[in-house]
Amino acid sequence: MTDFFKGIPVVTYEGEASTNEYAFRHYNPDEVILGKRMEDHLRFAVAYWHSFAWPGGDPFGGQTFDRPWFGDSMDLARLKADVAFEMFDILGAPFYCFHDADARPEGASFAESTRNLEEIVDYLGEKQATHKTQLLWGTANMFSHRRWMSGAATNPDPEVYAYAAATVKANMDATKKLGGQNYVLWGGREGYETLLNTDLKAERAHAGRFLQQVVEYKYKIGFTGTILIEPKPQEPSKHQYDYDVATVYGFLKDFGLEGEVKTNIEQGHAILAGHSFEHEIALASALGIFGSIDMNRNDYQSGWDTDQFPNNHAEKALAFYEILRAGGYTTGGTNFDAKVRRQSLDAEDLILAHVGGMDTCARALKAAAKMLEDGHMEAARATRYAGWQTSAAQAMLEGSLETIAADVMARNVNPEPVSGRQERLENLWNRYV
Amino acid sequence: MTDFFKGIPVVTYEGEASTNEYAFRHYNPDEVILGKRMEDHLRFAVAYWHSFAWPGGDPFGGQTFDRPWFGDSMDLARLKADVAFEMFDILGAPFYCFHDADARPEGASFAESTRNLEEIVDYLGEKQATHKTQLLWGTANMFSHRRWMSGAATNPDPEVYAYAAATVKANMDATKKLGGQNYVLWGGREGYETLLNTDLKAERAHAGRFLQQVVEYKYKIGFTGTILIEPKPQEPSKHQYDYDVATVYGFLKDFGLEGEVKTNIEQGHAILAGHSFEHEIALASALGIFGSIDMNRNDYQSGWDTDQFPNNHAEKALAFYEILRAGGYTTGGTNFDAKVRRQSLDAEDLILAHVGGMDTCARALKAAAKMLEDGHMEAARATRYAGWQTSAAQAMLEGSLETIAADVMARNVNPEPVSGRQERLENLWNRYV
Amino acid sequence: MTDFFKGIPVVTYEGEASTNEYAFRHYNPDEVILGKRMEDHLRFAVAYWHSFAWPGGDPFGGQTFDRPWFGDSMDLARLKADVAFEMFDILGAPFYCFHDADARPEGASFAESTRNLEEIVDYLGEKQATHKTQLLWGTANMFSHRRWMSGAATNPDPEVYAYAAATVKANMDATKKLGGQNYVLWGGREGYETLLNTDLKAERAHAGRFLQQVVEYKYKIGFTGTILIEPKPQEPSKHQYDYDVATVYGFLKDFGLEGEVKTNIEQGHAILAGHSFEHEIALASALGIFGSIDMNRNDYQSGWDTDQFPNNHAEKALAFYEILRAGGYTTGGTNFDAKVRRQSLDAEDLILAHVGGMDTCARALKAAAKMLEDGHMEAARATRYAGWQTSAAQAMLEGSLETIAADVMARNVNPEPVSGRQERLENLWNRYV
Amino acid sequence: MTDFFKGIPVVTYEGEASTNEYAFRHYNPDEVILGKRMEDHLRFAVAYWHSFAWPGGDPFGGQTFDRPWFGDSMDLARLKADVAFEMFDILGAPFYCFHDADARPEGASFAESTRNLEEIVDYLGEKQATHKTQLLWGTANMFSHRRWMSGAATNPDPEVYAYAAATVKANMDATKKLGGQNYVLWGGREGYETLLNTDLKAERAHAGRFLQQVVEYKYKIGFTGTILIEPKPQEPSKHQYDYDVATVYGFLKDFGLEGEVKTNIEQGHAILAGHSFEHEIALASALGIFGSIDMNRNDYQSGWDTDQFPNNHAEKALAFYEILRAGGYTTGGTNFDAKVRRQSLDAEDLILAHVGGMDTCARALKAAAKMLEDGHMEAARATRYAGWQTSAAQAMLEGSLETIAADVMARNVNPEPVSGRQERLENLWNRYV
Ligand SMILES: [Co+2]
Ligand SMILES: [Co+2]
Ligand SMILES: [Co+2]
Ligand SMILES: [Co+2]
Ligand SMILES: [Co+2]
Ligand SMILES: [Co+2]
Ligand SMILES: [Co+2]
Ligand SMILES: [Co+2]
Repeated sequence: MTDFFKGIPVVTYEGEASTNEYAFRHYNPDEVILGKRMEDHLRFAVAYWHSFAWPGGDPFGGQTFDRPWFGDSMDLARLKADVAFEMFDILGAPFYCFHDADARPEGASFAESTRNLEEIVDYLGEKQATHKTQLLWGTANMFSHRRWMSGAATNPDPEVYAYAAATVKANMDATKKLGGQNYVLWGGREGYETLLNTDLKAERAHAGRFLQQVVEYKYKIGFTGTILIEPKPQEPSKHQYDYDVATVYGFLKDFGLEGEVKTNIEQGHAILAGHSFEHEIALASALGIFGSIDMNRNDYQSGWDTDQFPNNHAEKALAFYEILRAGGYTTGGTNFDAKVRRQSLDAEDLILAHVGGMDTCARALKAAAKMLEDGHMEAARATRYAGWQTSAAQAMLEGSLETIAADVMARNVNPEPVSGRQERLENLWNRYV
Repeated sequence: MTDFFKGIPVVTYEGEASTNEYAFRHYNPDEVILGKRMEDHLRFAVAYWHSFAWPGGDPFGGQTFDRPWFGDSMDLARLKADVAFEMFDILGAPFYCFHDADARPEGASFAESTRNLEEIVDYLGEKQATHKTQLLWGTANMFSHRRWMSGAATNPDPEVYAYAAATVKANMDATKKLGGQNYVLWGGREGYETLLNTDLKAERAHAGRFLQQVVEYKYKIGFTGTILIEPKPQEPSKHQYDYDVATVYGFLKDFGLEGEVKTNIEQGHAILAGHSFEHEIALASALGIFGSIDMNRNDYQSGWDTDQFPNNHAEKALAFYEILRAGGYTTGGTNFDAKVRRQSLDAEDLILAHVGGMDTCARALKAAAKMLEDGHMEAARATRYAGWQTSAAQAMLEGSLETIAADVMARNVNPEPVSGRQERLENLWNRYV
Repeated sequence: MTDFFKGIPVVTYEGEASTNEYAFRHYNPDEVILGKRMEDHLRFAVAYWHSFAWPGGDPFGGQTFDRPWFGDSMDLARLKADVAFEMFDILGAPFYCFHDADARPEGASFAESTRNLEEIVDYLGEKQATHKTQLLWGTANMFSHRRWMSGAATNPDPEVYAYAAATVKANMDATKKLGGQNYVLWGGREGYETLLNTDLKAERAHAGRFLQQVVEYKYKIGFTGTILIEPKPQEPSKHQYDYDVATVYGFLKDFGLEGEVKTNIEQGHAILAGHSFEHEIALASALGIFGSIDMNRNDYQSGWDTDQFPNNHAEKALAFYEILRAGGYTTGGTNFDAKVRRQSLDAEDLILAHVGGMDTCARALKAAAKMLEDGHMEAARATRYAGWQTSAAQAMLEGSLETIAADVMARNVNPEPVSGRQERLENLWNRYV
Repeated sequence: MTDFFKGIPVVTYEGEASTNEYAFRHYNPDEVILGKRMEDHLRFAVAYWHSFAWPGGDPFGGQTFDRPWFGDSMDLARLKADVAFEMFDILGAPFYCFHDADARPEGASFAESTRNLEEIVDYLGEKQATHKTQLLWGTANMFSHRRWMSGAATNPDPEVYAYAAATVKANMDATKKLGGQNYVLWGGREGYETLLNTDLKAERAHAGRFLQQVVEYKYKIGFTGTILIEPKPQEPSKHQYDYDVATVYGFLKDFGLEGEVKTNIEQGHAILAGHSFEHEIALASALGIFGSIDMNRNDYQSGWDTDQFPNNHAEKALAFYEILRAGGYTTGGTNFDAKVRRQSLDAEDLILAHVGGMDTCARALKAAAKMLEDGHMEAARATRYAGWQTSAAQAMLEGSLETIAADVMARNVNPEPVSGRQERLENLWNRYV
């Protein structure tokens, strides 16, 4: 045991009446919701990077956090893993996620970096063997080191593509070894700063081929998890190729990968792209590419990614409602790609931010489940579209503009608008949240 | 001759030194640029709706314009057409565009509306026969009348789908009759206000089938123009299905239409979607779906569509550069989907706004063409990606993560970043604009 | 009794367990919160314009609502008032608000418009005498008619300033006659579309003098209500002079009016200006100019004013917390400057949208009051700033850079950062909402 | 001479026809514009921090630049100054600006930091004595070190206020010693992350008193430069107190400083606040608080501060037009608070980015000056407001609502709108840019 979290108790469910900061008021892992344990619905994951690797810097300021494991040695990397699993234990988190660069020191060469990764993966494997917490997904950090500044798979320099391919291979190997249920690709530098120096078409083609190689390698090694793309419209790049769910879908179709790759959807990225979180989930579900979520919010006032813990259950219930309508997660989960504010210096802050986030999600899930169970919302939706269930409507879809026009003339069709009842449905919603 | 534009002379090219408000300073239709007449490059079109049908209202105020043709009779519709062609003559515009609702009064039934349309189409046909100005594209207004409030092809009520199908048929017939070179669909109400009452998947399926029917009908009647979708992310809807070029592409792929339908890209819509105009053009070109443009800008300060005339040639040159790189228009053109401000009350304002817009585009085109001709920008781009021309790079794309990783290890690959030279390229750009 | 709301019952409090659409689940007017009846805390007002005068149009579509009172006669104006008070009765609303243009038909001259207004004011006065609902505030619509297109008090034409002055006089007279508790000025056209044709300094000076004249007239007629400015950054204008609370404050200071005029703060306008609602309230309170609120939200996805009913109590609780900290309203209230969506066609929608909004506010108020009562949040705030209570700290404020610097050197001051505890406070917040 | 810029020639004016990258095409320091040398109009300054202290990091990536002077020793600080003045010489820049933290290593105590600063100030003073380039303004970095994480003058901890006061004193001393013409305060951390832990009113009061102390110290030491506040709405803070020009004005009025302190306006900050650059300049001029500018742009697509070099002269001409209308700079200047993109790795990029920025400004200035000289724009403005020059209009401002209303009735005033002519003025503008 390290002493980083000394004095902080394991957090357990105490119910809504509790005023204990170190208790869950809503998250009750064993409570059964729609026939499934809450823990199995939510499948919470802690993100290694924000909680253990981020020093607290922002574009105008440097490190604020003092952590005993900060530094570049393998010993410190192991200390970091020790502390991480202590936090996972305190939270009872079933999953975690990591990038290579979060977990191991960068080496002087690719070979050394890979050896470092393998060594730390073994250490994480030992941890997993003796703890509840398992790997939700692995991923490669191909955006922080200066070699990636102009992209990874979309770099103008093919040597960087090569380095990226080797890096993803190493991370897929690591993810498979640790029993990861998914492998995620987020292309923070797969985009551009200015069109003036960019070959958009070539870069897109390279990104497509790269993703095919990833899928081919998945089959080669028998990795049974899901490959996920995390869309984001911009930041750090001015424009990123994986802009949003709809963009990723067109990209997957183009490279024959729509049956192979799904999406990891983050609320903050959804709103940067001009969407709501629930829209992106609903669309991914409609397109058959919903996989997992990063459950961290942006601040509506800030035009950049703030990666904050969720704290408004009424809003998050809309997201969980769409997840439940989509049938819930298979290999996916609820990852907190969230960081405490850089002013939140203490070990307590790290723990309690997660407790608050988990409680917010649990409360949202319960509201969404109840709503779905009661059925009023879905009944209203079905009523609104009931006209499409007639054979005449279906026949029309089979027909042509000409036959439809003739019918419109013949029947003197003149449709009368019907109320969309938005406010009534919002009131109905508010019965549940 | 009406007297609406009385006293306003025909506008001709006088060159940069001219201080005559009613002269072109840059637009010289017969000047040859990159082997083609400027008029044939730019293919300017005037939009009937903004200049002749819009009363000057906004969400907080009503009509500001006094126009002698405002009203709902066929006589007034003919007067409107007379004035419109007088304006086209003054500007020397080779093209115009219109919606049914701009040109004819709404009838009491679909049949009457269609008769009204047919009658005014005949009148427009006579006009075209005796004037230079021809039809760039036709389109249906399926967003203003209350019947469309919940969508056209995506309406929960199949009767509205039917009405929409009949409407598009009538407009395609009209467009074909008038020799229109394209037919445009903009889905302002094909979207939603709240997910709570929306069946996203069904609406998308209906939209897809509708578009197939449009393409089928095109072949049925032998319309040889191009079918275009105009993307817009939102407004009037909270979310619109044709969000941006990338979204439209995925949609077309899904319904097997990526070889049949192209895009009409508007600058204002591009920036509402978080893109630059030039990005959307470059992407459409890379995806093979670039068709035409609506050359009207938004104000960067306003979060809604302001449809203003372009007035910054340096910015628009970026768009024309991508159009030229894409090979220029085939059936497309430069449509001003632009309106004078509601305070710009006078006939002079209507004319001079177009003169300014045309001159801005001409100046931008000339800068872009010179840039392309001189070749420095493209040479820099080619140099940046030169590494991809090696056989080793191409072989890598054929290979696997495994073979690439082995190579990275073997060669101890450690790519050194190279300057992206953005500012130098911006300086180069500024030699031309 | 008209039959517009026929069949709709009076809405009363039934508690959280109720599933009756026509019941309040949270708003219980007589329930005592922090020593005051809930009705006296919330002071709800219905906005005449959105519910009774707006036809359902938007920038891309016309009227969707069918209302028997639409039209321009005095008879229809009286019918509208009848229906309005029927709605106020159904809701049990203590207040309403109106513009002249909502309530009376525009006349052919200023004199006729004024006579129309006086006549309808008498009618409204009779209504008030026999109903519970009284006037929260009156205001003049100086943005819809084309005469205002370039501004009212800031118009380049002094004749429009004159017309505006006469209009405000008539509306202040009306407000006084009806016992209105406030008079509001919202300057939708007090701004500009382009700096190129604008004399910013002159327009600001005219606006300042105009407001002084308003205050002078208030004293002249013995109007005892509060004069309020409603800030908004833009829309309809590209830039509006009353941008936000801070801007209004500087303007008031400049014209010696900071003790005379307060603010009416709208959530939608706050977020258009890049703020949160609670920020604007807290700032107005700190500056001594908090007056009243327009409790209607925008959609975070839309870059324009959507004026929707509030439906997220957790978010609104932040606003009510600041209102309670400010000591609550004096003459102000909670006005719904909100409109049902244009697809919400039915009389039921109008009623239920208000019911939902009132319940959302009541629930938010209760949470905020409990939070304040328990005192944990304020205790944490006091602790954070406790250092400033020392005499040394206060002495430092009296001192100079030089004396402070000497002290820093002498004591080798080297402040150690302390956690800001944001997430813990957010968790605390979530105990209450 | 260091060898950092080895091989790069001094940049001189060669005129528009030049294709030499290392030449000015528009910036001709001795050319006389409106009776003043271009250099004296523009008063260019280079920012020490972006060009010499920034390592190329962003929120998702670390250092990209290799600079021989990176590190924390005094020797390296002197090397940095050597290189900086070499760049100033190459550009012929008349001014530079710096923060303490850019120029000297942080010490282990305040005393050591101050000694380091004094030592480097002496070194910079020697440089200035032998080079053309002088100090435009000095400033203190009170946002990067972790001690400032919760604010400087607005910190909840009075010890930080003390440290801030001592820091500003040291920087004002340094600025005076180096003959700086202004002293700037930018409050990047003077704001908040969450209202929940913030005492808005107390923080504002402390900020006000702090600024008074700054002004008092200015007089104490006989510093004759101008004190400037640089507004920014957010980033790094979620909300910053010096939001925009109008907010700063109200703040200054409140603390009696409106005659003492002016503003340093940055284009990027203007657009983050929802304004145009020219608006902020015009407003500051109207309020009597225009001081200086930071001439660096944001990307309209990015919701954060990108600090890019200006590259669109047509847009910047609008800013220079307002500066010229305001009478030009007195102590202020055109500072490039701009950084090359993190991919722009080379010494050449640093030089050529400044060359492009200087040329863009020179071209913009020339266009603006010509426009002002020709007088058409100002004549149109005067015509639009001519009505206000009548004695009747002025008498109206002296009058009351009552007398004006009587006059409106008596004369049956019914103002007819007049075209605002926006597009015609935009065309006029385009004759010059
Ligand atoms: Co994120
Ligand atoms: Co994420
Ligand atoms: Co548009
Ligand atoms: Co358009
Ligand atoms: Co509003
Ligand atoms: Co309002
Ligand atoms: Co900046
Ligand atoms: Co700056």
